[in-house]
Amino acid sequence: MTENCLFCGIVAGSIPSQQVASTERAIAFMDINPATRGHLLVVPRAHATDLRESDPEDLAAATLLAQSLVGRVIERLDADGANLLSCIGADAWQSVFHTHLHVIPRYQDDPLRLPWQPASGDSDEIAKTAELLR
Amino acid sequence: MTENCLFCGIVAGSIPSQQVASTERAIAFMDINPATRGHLLVVPRAHATDLRESDPEDLAAATLLAQSLVGRVIERLDADGANLLSCIGADAWQSVFHTHLHVIPRYQDDPLRLPWQPASGDSDEIAKTAELLR
Repeated sequence: MTENCLFCGIVAGSIPSQQVASTERAIAFMDINPATRGHLLVVPRAHATDLRESDPEDLAAATLLAQSLVGRVIERLDADGANLLSCIGADAWQSVFHTHLHVIPRYQDDPLRLPWQPASGDSDEIAKTAELLR
Repeated sequence: MTENCLFCGIVAGSIPSQQVASTERAIAFMDINPATRGHLLVVPRAHATDLRESDPEDLAAATLLAQSLVGRVIERLDADGANLLSCIGADAWQSVFHTHLHVIPRYQDDPLRLPWQPASGDSDEIAKTAELLR
């Protein structure tokens, strides 16, 4: 754990999140600024600045958790697809410097363009969606 | 191998590509419609329609090859970062239905927005960049 790292705080439970799934090496929780309904973040428990710096076993574990969640958003949220995205470096739109994979559900004709403009989601709606994904 | 699959043809060598790296389960080659200089595709050798359908071992192998290539584009092309992107389903911008991970080098102040408008790159320039990445 690294002090002052938001995602380390979420992993440790000292910062609240809507956690959806977890494994020995990774956890998944709702993005509070969702690009689309059901937007999830998957992070290795171990701190690393970005994907390049993560232990390969941690990265593989996070990817496989993300893979299972892609299936879940399509099945349970009736999404039509999904994007898996990771940003390595501020010039690549990274804003939290702890390796993370975005799982962004996609819906036919949704207006998503990247980078999206982060805006706070409705926390009740996010909590309800999290419940569907658990 | 699935007939009429572009990426199965590239894996088999029956369709030419600028291959950059390969492992037992995955290969990496240059995107001929690069979003930025050095844009790579990493694909499992085994056919699957999209990331959700891939064998987890294949997906893990492709991800770890992509991880090493993120390091390589930053070191060898002087990129300032990178994006890892996978598109699952046509509504999520997928256009070739064989699991693939985009490794998109990023450069300070580059104009990238997603989805990008695919346009043929300069094949000599792509070949030169591939040589730097091998």
